[in-house]
Amino acid sequence: MRVLILCGGSGTRLWPISRKKSPKQFAKIFNNESLFQKTIKRNLTLANRFSIIVNELQLPLCQKQVQELGVEEKCDFLIEPVGRNTAPAIALGALHSKKDETLLVLPSDHLIKNQTEYERCVSLASQFASEGNLVTFGIKANYPETGYGYIEADGNAVKSFKEKPDAMTAQKYLDAGNYLWNSGMFCFKASTYLRELENHSPEILTASQKTYDQKLIQSSIITFKLENMNSIPSDSIDYAVMENSQKVKVVPSDIAWTDLGSFDALYTELDHDSNGNTKNDNNIYFQSENNLVLGGKRLIATFNVEDLIIVDSEDALVIGKKGESQNVKKIVEELQKRESHLLI
Amino acid sequence: MRVLILCGGSGTRLWPISRKKSPKQFAKIFNNESLFQKTIKRNLTLANRFSIIVNELQLPLCQKQVQELGVEEKCDFLIEPVGRNTAPAIALGALHSKKDETLLVLPSDHLIKNQTEYERCVSLASQFASEGNLVTFGIKANYPETGYGYIEADGNAVKSFKEKPDAMTAQKYLDAGNYLWNSGMFCFKASTYLRELENHSPEILTASQKTYDQKLIQSSIITFKLENMNSIPSDSIDYAVMENSQKVKVVPSDIAWTDLGSFDALYTELDHDSNGNTKNDNNIYFQSENNLVLGGKRLIATFNVEDLIIVDSEDALVIGKKGESQNVKKIVEELQKRESHLLI
Repeated sequence: MRVLILCGGSGTRLWPISRKKSPKQFAKIFNNESLFQKTIKRNLTLANRFSIIVNELQLPLCQKQVQELGVEEKCDFLIEPVGRNTAPAIALGALHSKKDETLLVLPSDHLIKNQTEYERCVSLASQFASEGNLVTFGIKANYPETGYGYIEADGNAVKSFKEKPDAMTAQKYLDAGNYLWNSGMFCFKASTYLRELENHSPEILTASQKTYDQKLIQSSIITFKLENMNSIPSDSIDYAVMENSQKVKVVPSDIAWTDLGSFDALYTELDHDSNGNTKNDNNIYFQSENNLVLGGKRLIATFNVEDLIIVDSEDALVIGKKGESQNVKKIVEELQKRESHLLI
Repeated sequence: MRVLILCGGSGTRLWPISRKKSPKQFAKIFNNESLFQKTIKRNLTLANRFSIIVNELQLPLCQKQVQELGVEEKCDFLIEPVGRNTAPAIALGALHSKKDETLLVLPSDHLIKNQTEYERCVSLASQFASEGNLVTFGIKANYPETGYGYIEADGNAVKSFKEKPDAMTAQKYLDAGNYLWNSGMFCFKASTYLRELENHSPEILTASQKTYDQKLIQSSIITFKLENMNSIPSDSIDYAVMENSQKVKVVPSDIAWTDLGSFDALYTELDHDSNGNTKNDNNIYFQSENNLVLGGKRLIATFNVEDLIIVDSEDALVIGKKGESQNVKKIVEELQKRESHLLI
């Protein structure tokens, strides 16, 4: 099996930790490991080859983190000078694979804590994939999240894909029990994906094939040309393939998954001291409780504060209230207005 | 008149802004001016000569700030390799003056906002000084502060000096109306101070005289020798002279004075925007109110927080609750235990 890791994203929900040049998947927030590194480690016993699809801005950081794990010889890097969403990225990865190779397609910025269950789900998905299916992983919803798309499932069959719901609809999905979060993780044979892409979005396949044929190779680094990439229609795998294919299966996955889409989500995943503050022996917490504190190289000291989000980075400092971390986007919007270099 | 500015202190109540190497009097917290610079500017029309008593660690910063004001030719610097409290420091300043010169002795870290009234008080003090008195400035108390000493006054006569009181006694002083805060500002002729020092603490005068006689002179920089300084008994002007002298007068001063002894005190003195946050066009305050925010070169952004103290420095970040800023000392104590370089 080959793992295809999609590193292209650069979300701002965890700004200032997550930036264009150093998006959240490369931030070392868990015991000096990044989510990208955790993604590789999670799959080392499952796969013998990793194709990492990454923006050229992020390549140096990405390579450094691969080297830290000592797995350079298992990895190649597919460099996108510009992102065209997931359908083309996966097409390029599939074209770079052997036809009958099974691909496990993974975002690089998720946290999965139940490794045993994860391996069981991948094994099942791999079996469906070998039978010519496009397999998606559906996460068992445990609250009515409105930020994800949903998959209406019937066992391993997919009845329908659903857009991000409003709060009332999300609650209905949760109550129904057979609606799963669309995780963005997939499993299929390279040939299956390319055939289904040809069936449902042939113009993406054609342009991707041309892009792949004109690639530049430098040992393990494969670089695609900007003018070729620009000619590929930008689309997600969901819209371009999954929602139209008759060959789709879902594996319901209860794997303690999170996409760490906010500082509030991050707080619950980090280790705390007995007062609920983020563990850090350098910091000083005086009469302070339940604070998320992300540093930095500098000492952080607090007194008499609770339920704060404190995020310290080299050039920006964010302090907010827990439970309100969606408002980080308000700060990012203001910085966009200012055309601030702090977003890069 | 000669102004004697005492720059020796390095309090930690405003840590991390206030450090051994860069104590609060040199921090540029008011429109890019330091309290030391404000002290000089406040007296430029009153005095033609400034003697600045400063620790050698702080000399470079002190000189730079004098140069920024363009008043180098009015200043000389008396360098103490080690501090011996105020009585010896003032003795060295007095020995460096002409005998009949009037000295206005000032701490470097106070804020005085009523300049007109300040000038009136100095003028009155100067008149008492010319008549051979030791004059102290007593600040009209407007709340029962327990952190200052008090002067029991009867008009311009001093009935007694009082140690820092407990809360109940402080309230009694406030109610009585004739108890003034001991500000640490003084006015007298050089010869008066030296004579009274001889009367009440002759060993300080003798050792100070020897120290002054063996000084090193490099243009406007007068340096005292460490072994000489070490031989001077360490004592405050209050204990060594004022509390024992019969020649003491007080000038009750209603001059909008503060010694900025805490971040809470600092908050009230800084400019705020319409939401009560410290004015700073670089910062972003989203749904945030009444926060003290002291930067730094870095952007500081907040969301949904109120009544916080946020102090960002090069190598340390402090976040606490307004109204609790005395707990900064708890953080400093912890750093002392760790023998942290962050205190230097």
